Amino acid sequence: MKKLKMGMVGGGSGALIGAVHRRAAIMDGEVEFVAGALSSNREKALASGRELGLTDERNYASWERMLEDELSLQEKERIDFVSIVTPNHMHHPVARAFAEAGFNVVLDKPMVHTSQEAEDLMRVVESSGVVFAVTYTYTGYPMVKQARHMVREGLLGEVRKVIVEYNQGWLASQLEESGTKQAEWRTDPARSGIAGAIGDIGSHAENLVSTITGLEVAEICADLTTFVSGRRLDDDGNLLIRYEGGAKGVMMASQISAGEENDLRIRIYGTEGGLEWRQEEPNYLFHKPAEEPERVLKRGNDYLCEEARRASRLPAGHPEGFIEAFANVYMNVVAAISAKQEQAKPDGLSWDFPTVYDGAQGVHFIEKTVESSRSDEKWSDARWRPPARQRQTL
Amino acid sequence: MKKLKMGMVGGGSGALIGAVHRRAAIMDGEVEFVAGALSSNREKALASGRELGLTDERNYASWERMLEDELSLQEKERIDFVSIVTPNHMHHPVARAFAEAGFNVVLDKPMVHTSQEAEDLMRVVESSGVVFAVTYTYTGYPMVKQARHMVREGLLGEVRKVIVEYNQGWLASQLEESGTKQAEWRTDPARSGIAGAIGDIGSHAENLVSTITGLEVAEICADLTTFVSGRRLDDDGNLLIRYEGGAKGVMMASQISAGEENDLRIRIYGTEGGLEWRQEEPNYLFHKPAEEPERVLKRGNDYLCEEARRASRLPAGHPEGFIEAFANVYMNVVAAISAKQEQAKPDGLSWDFPTVYDGAQGVHFIEKTVESSRSDEKWSDARWRPPARQRQTL
Amino acid sequence: MKKLKMGMVGGGSGALIGAVHRRAAIMDGEVEFVAGALSSNREKALASGRELGLTDERNYASWERMLEDELSLQEKERIDFVSIVTPNHMHHPVARAFAEAGFNVVLDKPMVHTSQEAEDLMRVVESSGVVFAVTYTYTGYPMVKQARHMVREGLLGEVRKVIVEYNQGWLASQLEESGTKQAEWRTDPARSGIAGAIGDIGSHAENLVSTITGLEVAEICADLTTFVSGRRLDDDGNLLIRYEGGAKGVMMASQISAGEENDLRIRIYGTEGGLEWRQEEPNYLFHKPAEEPERVLKRGNDYLCEEARRASRLPAGHPEGFIEAFANVYMNVVAAISAKQEQAKPDGLSWDFPTVYDGAQGVHFIEKTVESSRSDEKWSDARWRPPARQRQTL
Amino acid sequence: MKKLKMGMVGGGSGALIGAVHRRAAIMDGEVEFVAGALSSNREKALASGRELGLTDERNYASWERMLEDELSLQEKERIDFVSIVTPNHMHHPVARAFAEAGFNVVLDKPMVHTSQEAEDLMRVVESSGVVFAVTYTYTGYPMVKQARHMVREGLLGEVRKVIVEYNQGWLASQLEESGTKQAEWRTDPARSGIAGAIGDIGSHAENLVSTITGLEVAEICADLTTFVSGRRLDDDGNLLIRYEGGAKGVMMASQISAGEENDLRIRIYGTEGGLEWRQEEPNYLFHKPAEEPERVLKRGNDYLCEEARRASRLPAGHPEGFIEAFANVYMNVVAAISAKQEQAKPDGLSWDFPTVYDGAQGVHFIEKTVESSRSDEKWSDARWRPPARQRQTL
Repeated sequence: MKKLKMGMVGGGSGALIGAVHRRAAIMDGEVEFVAGALSSNREKALASGRELGLTDERNYASWERMLEDELSLQEKERIDFVSIVTPNHMHHPVARAFAEAGFNVVLDKPMVHTSQEAEDLMRVVESSGVVFAVTYTYTGYPMVKQARHMVREGLLGEVRKVIVEYNQGWLASQLEESGTKQAEWRTDPARSGIAGAIGDIGSHAENLVSTITGLEVAEICADLTTFVSGRRLDDDGNLLIRYEGGAKGVMMASQISAGEENDLRIRIYGTEGGLEWRQEEPNYLFHKPAEEPERVLKRGNDYLCEEARRASRLPAGHPEGFIEAFANVYMNVVAAISAKQEQAKPDGLSWDFPTVYDGAQGVHFIEKTVESSRSDEKWSDARWRPPARQRQTL
Repeated sequence: MKKLKMGMVGGGSGALIGAVHRRAAIMDGEVEFVAGALSSNREKALASGRELGLTDERNYASWERMLEDELSLQEKERIDFVSIVTPNHMHHPVARAFAEAGFNVVLDKPMVHTSQEAEDLMRVVESSGVVFAVTYTYTGYPMVKQARHMVREGLLGEVRKVIVEYNQGWLASQLEESGTKQAEWRTDPARSGIAGAIGDIGSHAENLVSTITGLEVAEICADLTTFVSGRRLDDDGNLLIRYEGGAKGVMMASQISAGEENDLRIRIYGTEGGLEWRQEEPNYLFHKPAEEPERVLKRGNDYLCEEARRASRLPAGHPEGFIEAFANVYMNVVAAISAKQEQAKPDGLSWDFPTVYDGAQGVHFIEKTVESSRSDEKWSDARWRPPARQRQTL
Repeated sequence: MKKLKMGMVGGGSGALIGAVHRRAAIMDGEVEFVAGALSSNREKALASGRELGLTDERNYASWERMLEDELSLQEKERIDFVSIVTPNHMHHPVARAFAEAGFNVVLDKPMVHTSQEAEDLMRVVESSGVVFAVTYTYTGYPMVKQARHMVREGLLGEVRKVIVEYNQGWLASQLEESGTKQAEWRTDPARSGIAGAIGDIGSHAENLVSTITGLEVAEICADLTTFVSGRRLDDDGNLLIRYEGGAKGVMMASQISAGEENDLRIRIYGTEGGLEWRQEEPNYLFHKPAEEPERVLKRGNDYLCEEARRASRLPAGHPEGFIEAFANVYMNVVAAISAKQEQAKPDGLSWDFPTVYDGAQGVHFIEKTVESSRSDEKWSDARWRPPARQRQTL
Repeated sequence: MKKLKMGMVGGGSGALIGAVHRRAAIMDGEVEFVAGALSSNREKALASGRELGLTDERNYASWERMLEDELSLQEKERIDFVSIVTPNHMHHPVARAFAEAGFNVVLDKPMVHTSQEAEDLMRVVESSGVVFAVTYTYTGYPMVKQARHMVREGLLGEVRKVIVEYNQGWLASQLEESGTKQAEWRTDPARSGIAGAIGDIGSHAENLVSTITGLEVAEICADLTTFVSGRRLDDDGNLLIRYEGGAKGVMMASQISAGEENDLRIRIYGTEGGLEWRQEEPNYLFHKPAEEPERVLKRGNDYLCEEARRASRLPAGHPEGFIEAFANVYMNVVAAISAKQEQAKPDGLSWDFPTVYDGAQGVHFIEKTVESSRSDEKWSDARWRPPARQRQTL
């Protein structure tokens, strides 16, 4: 077994999500972290790299330098992929540059700031043929894969209604004024884009619905609010949604729901029954057939679908969590990269991670939600019609 | 102790809610059920009365006869109040007639079909001075009273967001075509009024928010749907709500959420924390202070407010349910009637039941929701400005 | 419909369980409370009766007087049954006297103080032929009936292990010294018998196992403790149990488990799966088949057995609680008495309540547990071999 | 930062726990896996090592060879510690040899087969001065550390009662006959020792009680059962326990509780309240103060104790699980080894992992439990009085 070499842009000391990416990437023993440009600040970048054990040669002071130097290495010495975990405003230039140069990319969400950037990135990825993943973590959970399987298999009948929520409370007070880095950049339009809560967590909610149900948004009616005075982006958003085909939806995304932690949950109702999953208890999936006892499906059991079983590392009853869900994205990215390197055709499951198209759809959704919220029209067309939309092929 | 004498209109054999009213009324031993016109069908009415042990003299074939005969009795022999549990379309004429004649009334919800009827009833109640209650059962639960207390006391700080849901699945299929009486009249505009799910259960959700938070609806944006083909009323409704003062709300009321039973739940978020109550586990109230451990308050404990303690019949850990919540409405109605009869000033708690004003507000909300759903305007004004609005006094 | 006339011994003002009996008895409209000797204190008895609306003629100053006077009435005027809700030490004389005189009896648990008394009562009941019920309330819950049904039907395969617990915390401090009546008599050997927690609540746990599984206790190994200094009876008990046929059991009954309320729960494991029921969430029954998803059965659904459905008053999702479970005992007692009066053969379900045999078995269990706790022998024979043991017939 | 070098004995292809150890060890980026003797079968050992990316030089065919060769390396090249994850019967010879040679050791539980071996190992560890950890994983959970903190701080008052359970169902059928490796060796006395369920999982339960409460076992009364015919070790065990100082305990450990997965849970009751933790929902700790609302403490919050906060990798609401608990053991072992190598005095928290003494205590407990189960004496003395018992110092 050859380990894949990972580089990282962003994620220096004190950054939350960078450490999660690293743990998720290395925990299966298939990836080694060898290079990084870990901060936009030179000194901080280098200090972080030393702390994390990077060699001096591959501890870069800037991402541009990293790109240049890695390109100058022999192909088998180069990093096999780069993980980009900067604040949002750097996603587009960095991801674009690496993808164009032929590096496989793992990029945090939301993918970029605007639809124009998203479409640009789609084109670059399509022409370069790199493996490109967007870390919508929550779809990495085994029981989310099981939910997707059950909806596809028709266990709910025809889907009529979807309620998706993402309730957080950590921005209920003006945390951005008290020196909390996370709060600062996430409430800053320059670094976060046009949306606050709806961009940061609403995008996860949208991706969760889309992944599990396959439903496509037709029209939305959004009401975004900024509750904390002085804040420049929304911190609460509620939407009515009409999906193609007649299903209805409700979405809530809030960062001022005081007392809530990371309460992402989804309920799906079809003609034959309902399904519920809650991120804070991710090892369970609740299935409510219309006329029978509720069923609690649990991670790690043989009765689950193959994708869910593959995404488990432990027997039933030994809880897996967020890092493992994240690791499932990396696991499938690694499989896809390996397959590409070996010119092998990956099996279908290897592509079981969110791609540049999922990322672009998410950016489009954020834009349309902000538009709708500003509009007096009840319903805003929010259909996503990308100029090119084809599954990535090797 | 003198027991109050109850009469009933509607609620004959096979009727669900009539039996609940009777159990709730008599269980505390303060009410006896002595008279009834239990069906609009003469034979069924009389047969039902016999089955329930009414004497022949007070087992009436029609409500008109019951009203006439009871009036002809000496005052101390007459029923002390009438419970009206017919299908909705009979609420207005029956309630009006009894109230006008000076009988105290307990009326099921939704109160009447139209705002005109509601305002008419308000005037009649105000001029006659009768005790008049509308059985929004859920506000009879002790932990709902505790939630109201905590919001009033400011434990959540300023309320910012309210999510209220009422998810049922029993009408997910076309049950009204299979001979189910409940399904038949509840999906029939002639007997149920202009709204289906939003009238039947959305009105409970609205009353729950209003009771606990005191928030007043300013504007709404509604999307009602009829999912089951052939059905003549909505079976699913979702609303965005703007309250006076800036709080935001989301309401869901559905009877096609297959697999759900009677899933009424409310979450309230303020600047200082959140509060959650779920009807299917009514003995608990979940309080999530912003920076402290979640607290689970449980019925029957000394740490609860007086209204919640008064509304409990059992020690902590001995579950109370729906009938007991219902009985709490009757308990307070009985106290109010007794006080009125004794010319005594009731203590504040005796009025702790939903009145004609709550009923009228509910009818107004239903009308505005249907209006909004039909409108292209995003926001519809839904403020309730009753011609006269003053607390009922003796 | 003719209502049955209930008399009551004990249960005066301030008594907890008397009020529960009355509510449970009358809530279905089939029983009227007409006579009582509500306290051993004459003045208190009479005052309580007046408060509860008894007529002066049947508001008795003592139970002996009540017995005498009721006997002197014409048979159709007499009470149809008496509910005995005194402290335990009065159970035997009162129940004996009424049963011997031909009155049907509803008696609170534990039935009596000693096996001698229990056997005496069995003989009296057998010879008099009265309907005799012991209010082990918890077996009145619909989902307990469903559990019994599922075990009988073999859904768990062969039962191997039973864990039953009854955890309370209300006696964690020396409450009996602070004027709490409930605490006083329940910790007083003269009024409660030889056992504290194990008698008061352990007997419920024993009856729950016996009812659901039909297992018969063979040997026990008990460790009873008195944690609160100065207390004269055990306040905590733990048992290892060996059942006939090889199943093993663990029982815990505690009144010093601080923070717990009324946490009665049972888990049953067979070769094919497990079953769990918790009294504090009584509307659910958790079934865990060995290789399939857990199932949550919910009260009020058509998929439940007939006994469970008959014991429900409300549709699914409308919680029922402790009083309703209690009312189910009365409902079946009423059916049995009515059948007896009409010389009709009751259908099998009418006898679905705990009888004098269940009561006697419970008393035997308490005695053997106290014996075992005092013994150095690991295993004490605790088989119950009543002198006569035959199902009561009309 | 210098990464520590890990070697492993056992844990080849298909082994469950070896993979968990590796993931737990490397996920924080502070350990690299460089050497192994991964199976007792030469070919399997080498194939496994290649698959896992070991270099040929350090991919050993036997643990004896690994020990010899690693010793021959320069000290700074050698592995910094060895993780031993073989079946139980190899624990003693391998751990003894490595510890005696001066290697730091991480050893799976139960530590060894007999008290003699345990005491021997204690002496070796004491004389060699190596860092020696036994992977009682469950005490690595942050909320277990919080529970320990709260008991120590006296929030429960004096502890009176402890209920600990470990319910599994995976051995409810005769799985060892169907080719399941895990089932084979765990039910084989030659490889597992004298105890089945009580050794495999009862030892975890014992360690959990000991860690959280500090209570010392005085006497036990055990009833072990083998339910599955043909099985050679117990598959179910129930114990009554008396602790020094008067507290009482109940322990259940079962592998035939069909339908249960990995249901380890503990409840602790003191004079002031109760505490509950369940491994299957490990991010929560339930605190029930005697007279106040229940509190749900959640991982990742500032209100937790330092040890619990240090043991978290993610913000609140992002679930952590079993691997992270395991990683916490490694994290503290790494800190202890690093401190030892730097001759630094570690801070107190660095020693927050189970040591050779915990391991020996567990072995003693298993022996005494088997003894008690075979005895007719009700109570068996089970006090642990090790010949030397002193905290390991550097």
